[in-house]
Amino acid sequence: MTRPASAPGPSADLPPLDDAELAALRRVGRHWARTVADEPRASLPVEPGLHGYPDEVTPGRFNRVVSVQNGGATRAGEEVRDDAPPRRARMLRILLGPPLRSTALASEKIRKLVALPVLSADALSSVAYGPEAMVAVLVLAGSAGLGVSLPIAGAIAFLMLATGVSYRQTIRAYPNGGGSYIVATDNLGRRLGLTAAAGLLTDYVLTVAVSVSSGVSAVTSAVPSLGPAAVPIGAGVIAVLLAGNLRGVRQAGSIFAAPTYAFIAAMAALIAVGLVQAAGRGFHPTPHPPIAAAEGVGLLLVLRAFASGSTAMTGIEAISNAVPAFQPPGWRNARTTLTVMVGILIVLFAGTVVLVHIDGVVPRGGETVLSQLAHQTFGGGPLYALTQAATAAVLLLAANTAFNDFPRVLSLMARDRQAPRMFLRMGDRLAFSNGIAILAVAAGAILVGFNGQTSSLIPLYAVGVFLAFALSQTGMVVHWRRHRGPHWRRSMIFNGTGAVLSSIVFVIAGVTKFTAGAWVSILVVVLVVVGGSRIRRHYAIVHRALALHPAGGPTARVTETEESPETIRHLVVVPVRTIDLASMRALAYADSLGQPVLAVHISATQEEADRFVDYWRAWGDHLPLEVVVSPYRALVAPLVHYIEALHSQRGDLTLTVVLPEVVVRRPWHRILHGRTESRLRRALKPLRKVVVTTVPVHLPD
Amino acid sequence: MTRPASAPGPSADLPPLDDAELAALRRVGRHWARTVADEPRASLPVEPGLHGYPDEVTPGRFNRVVSVQNGGATRAGEEVRDDAPPRRARMLRILLGPPLRSTALASEKIRKLVALPVLSADALSSVAYGPEAMVAVLVLAGSAGLGVSLPIAGAIAFLMLATGVSYRQTIRAYPNGGGSYIVATDNLGRRLGLTAAAGLLTDYVLTVAVSVSSGVSAVTSAVPSLGPAAVPIGAGVIAVLLAGNLRGVRQAGSIFAAPTYAFIAAMAALIAVGLVQAAGRGFHPTPHPPIAAAEGVGLLLVLRAFASGSTAMTGIEAISNAVPAFQPPGWRNARTTLTVMVGILIVLFAGTVVLVHIDGVVPRGGETVLSQLAHQTFGGGPLYALTQAATAAVLLLAANTAFNDFPRVLSLMARDRQAPRMFLRMGDRLAFSNGIAILAVAAGAILVGFNGQTSSLIPLYAVGVFLAFALSQTGMVVHWRRHRGPHWRRSMIFNGTGAVLSSIVFVIAGVTKFTAGAWVSILVVVLVVVGGSRIRRHYAIVHRALALHPAGGPTARVTETEESPETIRHLVVVPVRTIDLASMRALAYADSLGQPVLAVHISATQEEADRFVDYWRAWGDHLPLEVVVSPYRALVAPLVHYIEALHSQRGDLTLTVVLPEVVVRRPWHRILHGRTESRLRRALKPLRKVVVTTVPVHLPD
Repeated sequence: MTRPASAPGPSADLPPLDDAELAALRRVGRHWARTVADEPRASLPVEPGLHGYPDEVTPGRFNRVVSVQNGGATRAGEEVRDDAPPRRARMLRILLGPPLRSTALASEKIRKLVALPVLSADALSSVAYGPEAMVAVLVLAGSAGLGVSLPIAGAIAFLMLATGVSYRQTIRAYPNGGGSYIVATDNLGRRLGLTAAAGLLTDYVLTVAVSVSSGVSAVTSAVPSLGPAAVPIGAGVIAVLLAGNLRGVRQAGSIFAAPTYAFIAAMAALIAVGLVQAAGRGFHPTPHPPIAAAEGVGLLLVLRAFASGSTAMTGIEAISNAVPAFQPPGWRNARTTLTVMVGILIVLFAGTVVLVHIDGVVPRGGETVLSQLAHQTFGGGPLYALTQAATAAVLLLAANTAFNDFPRVLSLMARDRQAPRMFLRMGDRLAFSNGIAILAVAAGAILVGFNGQTSSLIPLYAVGVFLAFALSQTGMVVHWRRHRGPHWRRSMIFNGTGAVLSSIVFVIAGVTKFTAGAWVSILVVVLVVVGGSRIRRHYAIVHRALALHPAGGPTARVTETEESPETIRHLVVVPVRTIDLASMRALAYADSLGQPVLAVHISATQEEADRFVDYWRAWGDHLPLEVVVSPYRALVAPLVHYIEALHSQRGDLTLTVVLPEVVVRRPWHRILHGRTESRLRRALKPLRKVVVTTVPVHLPD
Repeated sequence: MTRPASAPGPSADLPPLDDAELAALRRVGRHWARTVADEPRASLPVEPGLHGYPDEVTPGRFNRVVSVQNGGATRAGEEVRDDAPPRRARMLRILLGPPLRSTALASEKIRKLVALPVLSADALSSVAYGPEAMVAVLVLAGSAGLGVSLPIAGAIAFLMLATGVSYRQTIRAYPNGGGSYIVATDNLGRRLGLTAAAGLLTDYVLTVAVSVSSGVSAVTSAVPSLGPAAVPIGAGVIAVLLAGNLRGVRQAGSIFAAPTYAFIAAMAALIAVGLVQAAGRGFHPTPHPPIAAAEGVGLLLVLRAFASGSTAMTGIEAISNAVPAFQPPGWRNARTTLTVMVGILIVLFAGTVVLVHIDGVVPRGGETVLSQLAHQTFGGGPLYALTQAATAAVLLLAANTAFNDFPRVLSLMARDRQAPRMFLRMGDRLAFSNGIAILAVAAGAILVGFNGQTSSLIPLYAVGVFLAFALSQTGMVVHWRRHRGPHWRRSMIFNGTGAVLSSIVFVIAGVTKFTAGAWVSILVVVLVVVGGSRIRRHYAIVHRALALHPAGGPTARVTETEESPETIRHLVVVPVRTIDLASMRALAYADSLGQPVLAVHISATQEEADRFVDYWRAWGDHLPLEVVVSPYRALVAPLVHYIEALHSQRGDLTLTVVLPEVVVRRPWHRILHGRTESRLRRALKPLRKVVVTTVPVHLPD
């Protein structure tokens, strides 16, 4: 539902040809016709339509292919194969559900009251870890440090406001969805767009890791006996998210609305009751437990606390991505929703920090700050349990949001040929399966690698988020300067403010947290940018190399005759290892093609070579044979060498190497048979004009 | 050098055909001649000899193939490939050394004075852990337990004597080498032979693990600061043994002689000096440190101590395997050597136990019993250091022995078709590389898994050893009953005694140590026996299935025509995904074969399908095309389904599926290209009469 229109559709497999390409195609075709016109066309032994396909087939639980109705009766003695896929495929199918048609892509529009919880789970849930991350830094300077928490929180609240106003401009300018990657690419160019995408990708991986670890902390705070199992629980949660998203979970509004509203209600109650209780005490702060100050209140400490606390605003950009999902007028509804969300976010964030200050709560192992607040305010009763449950649920939903967004960014990158093509296609459940799997693996690895500690993950988090924010908002500044629509000056100022502030936070987070983990995120960003550029270059080379080139054109150095059949001259080479049915089948297949055939035998000893020649003569010497003696017992290398020699002697020939392959029925039988066939195939791959043909020999049951 | 004549040679690739097989071959050949006689034979476009091979080529550092002298000059514009293999292969070559000719297999005969240290390293080194393992059990019963160490040691010494006498009979009966596998198979049948082999295999794995862990302990006893690194050091030692044996280290006598003689000398000095010192005290035992008795001296404790202590005789069978390596008269020299070795073994073992008793030494963490004895006897000076160094060295050599024996047993099993064929062939360094690698991995895993603790490995050890002993000696009893040579009754009694005693130890070790780890060894033995039998059955099925069957014979249900070319009717199927050079090459190749061609396109949508048909017409519609719409975006499944449908409609056709494959230059580029080609190949493999042809399309640099 949050899939914007700018995401690629289910298929981009057959790119349309432009006029030049069509002309080249026609020309290639004319050349083909000229050269093969004098040959008699072999008549087709089958009717390719197979008596027609059924028009409409409902996918069942186990079939995802259009079944072919067979016009004729099954031939006697013919093996009848049933349509049930092998067991592994069937297990997968039960887990993931039946395939979905491309037309099943949801295009439903959502109301604001549903959009708010759906799209703000990520941002609002950040309140569960942001304030704690900030206080955890300040506590290093003892009471003096905790004293500056209110001013820092004020700065972060202002940042939230500025970013919110800035994204309001983006929504107006990109009513079809303005993700950071699209806005940055549009306005700042490919390379900075790639940088924004890299920031987003690290952001989403860390959203999953941080939300899950923080959600698990919410649970273990309430049930401390689960504490030691936190990492396995977190990994399990990621596995469930993976399975759910591979199934293609639609973000049904009602499912998402409940926990988010419950979280908002619980937090609001917590803050309200907490403030009333504090008012009863005349707002005298409860003294916090004595803390040994490890360092003074310096600028560096304040900046680090600021960077940590600003993770409370991750996810604020979600609404600007999803404008097309709103009921019309989309951009107006989206802006209203964004405003409400930012308002709630600021209230919850500020309220939490004030309450932490008044209640004298400090971070400690085993229980989250939010849980401590709830304990102090509600006691240990059902209200406390509700708060913890709502917190865990909204964090789970936040993680799930990333499972929608990460593969979408990857597929946009793949559409622009800056990511591997495998991220482009949707699986048969209409989900981007490969991207989902990569996200789950990366987030799981980080979660386990950092031992499920939210506090260790925070330093990695802010960098990617604010890099993407900064580039997106800088892109908007360029956009307004170029397009100069209504109110463009005001919008540019708002976006400019957002861009400057985000850049400052990015620099602060990158510098102050560099050694604590930010270097990991920066390294990943650099790798994605460099990798994306190299992938793009590779695809460009492939595209040029595989393009049809008009005859006589500048690229016609590659002889055009390779695309038409008449000039291909064949030699079929059959490596024969021993005299058995498999070799005989390969020889018979090779000979039946009607092209010249040469059999080659590799022997370890001269004696064995002589024996083989005797057998060959006993058979009748029907085909030319060459025997090579390899005194080092190697099989593959001398054969490849011989074929290379053949090729260098007669470069005009296309060599077809026919290999028999024994097909076993059970996977474990494979280790009982040599890997000669696959090793030979790999060794022959780099040779030009060497075609490899595998003739299967099936074993009986 | 210890490779007995019964080991398989370097090549068993071309099995000789018997008369029936030759007749079948002739018959198949005549049939071929009859059916293709009327066709004109296509003339061969090359001279297969390529102007002859050089007669003799010295293998260089990097080439292991016979290079082909190219008669003609390299064609202009032709890519010239140099002979240097890719970097990975070159690295491997430097590590492992240049390839060796089959004729380089050593057949040197050794003198007794060299054979003794070479072949007894395994047995004698067992003194380093056997007595300690025994005392470590007894110490659980405190002083009372230690009191029975001497009687138990006496029983073990008697067992050594009996086993030694028993193996003297084996040497006489099997002058060509009588390993347990051969003797048991010969006399007790295939299944018990397999059981003996399974025992041997676990024995060799544990020899490596125990010898290495014990050798590392000898080092860490002397240099306690290395203690925490014991496991990495042990793993490193196994890696060095792996590399050395893959290189094909010849067991040069002088290298082996030195440490073994040094160990014998050091142990003899230790025992002698220790006894002299004890005599000075009037043989009054030094009181051992106070020990809390955890249990009483029961039968079970005594039996467990006996089983642990009997690991001191592992390796005693080595000489009987290696009879052919002795100077003639081999069997006489081997017997003399065995007698001397058993004598030394009994003296060292008994002396050690007596000294342990007199000196009041008990096992403790961080220092081996042998090291404690050496400390008490020699102080901390050079004699102590020499003792520890010799112990470590002889244990290393014992581990190395297993690297010779394990792959040899596996290759004997493979020769009998009871192990995967990959263990049969020697690598280009004339070593059984696969078996060596498996041994190193298994021993390394066990060493790491048991945290390098010799004491935890001992319970696994005795089971396999005494299982092989018992079966081998029982086999000898059967042998004497059958053959009744000179002194057969006496020999039978000796072997019978050995068999009964070994069986008793096997049962004791299996029962008393079952839960402590013996179950692992027993499980492995069962798995090897079951696996070996299933492997044998599979190979038999394959052999029958691939045998040439004479026409009209009882197995001629499989139509014989599959082995002659005339009845093969072709249809070439070309899956076309998009219009590019790769597809055009595949189409051109397919068409040039001169057989009927059908192109198939799979579309995700009807709209895409229509567009493809338009392009096809623009090209000129040169070949019949079938378009299949797959609404679930799958590519492979509908294609396979279509080909299955074709096959079931016309089962007489041989379908050749031509697939273009883009060949990339760098491994990492592979993830940028779909795996459609390999997935399709895997999916088509189970289909009968479906041949897969890969046309490579090479990208420019």
